[in-house]
Amino acid sequence: MPPAASDREPTTPPPAFLREIAWNADGLVAAVAQDAGTGEVLMMAWMDEAALLKTRETGLAHYYSRSRRRQWLKGESSGHVQRVESIHVDCDADVLLLKVRQAGGACHEGYRSCFFRRVAEDGRLEAEGSPVFDAGAVYGAGGPAPAAG
Amino acid sequence: MPPAASDREPTTPPPAFLREIAWNADGLVAAVAQDAGTGEVLMMAWMDEAALLKTRETGLAHYYSRSRRRQWLKGESSGHVQRVESIHVDCDADVLLLKVRQAGGACHEGYRSCFFRRVAEDGRLEAEGSPVFDAGAVYGAGGPAPAAG
Repeated sequence: MPPAASDREPTTPPPAFLREIAWNADGLVAAVAQDAGTGEVLMMAWMDEAALLKTRETGLAHYYSRSRRRQWLKGESSGHVQRVESIHVDCDADVLLLKVRQAGGACHEGYRSCFFRRVAEDGRLEAEGSPVFDAGAVYGAGGPAPAAG
Repeated sequence: MPPAASDREPTTPPPAFLREIAWNADGLVAAVAQDAGTGEVLMMAWMDEAALLKTRETGLAHYYSRSRRRQWLKGESSGHVQRVESIHVDCDADVLLLKVRQAGGACHEGYRSCFFRRVAEDGRLEAEGSPVFDAGAVYGAGGPAPAAG
């Protein structure tokens, strides 16, 4: 027998903006995370609908790992979570911009930002700045899973 | 008869960082453009190898339009070019960050940034700020082609 109406979980209607998102063929949308304080661009990752809803619900950035095919909480293994201050949507609605407060560093290589390498004049990549945490200590000797946060 | 060696165009070897880029299945890499002065995130678009090389060669951002299947100069119809100050590569080498000097506005809807809409508390999208140019006047009555710049 189905539960009586009064026993059912109250259902929250999905937020209106969700209908406007132009999900790609894999049901994902690109999400750029930017430090809400300094403006530094920290990383880009992907979100499915569930990750986006979870992000709004918890205030912590959740993404979708294409390699592991599952949702992940940014910082789930490192503790380096991203508290989301605001979510912005671009004109084509296929890219999100998250303004976040980043704990520790966003990059699994120990840097504050994943964009720590710059193309130098001679065409080679050079690292800028220094890591903000010891990636080996945080993620263990096996090394971090890519995008494990 | 093939031209003598001395008549050939001098060939420039491709920059070393190009080999490190993790192009996606379509031969593209995501590129986030950020205002080099204010730190504002302006847009995200895609680049193929030719667009990336042209960007380095000219100092003006070139992208690859997936809908029109061709390279385009950002600002080719609007004049709103992006002078590239530096190119950064993320840890997985599948996203680029371009720090640029943006002429006019990045968005074909007339805004400085394509991320001019914010998800409000109630889940609806609301525009923030005001357009910096008249998109109708710049792109004509037919409206802009998406990502026509």
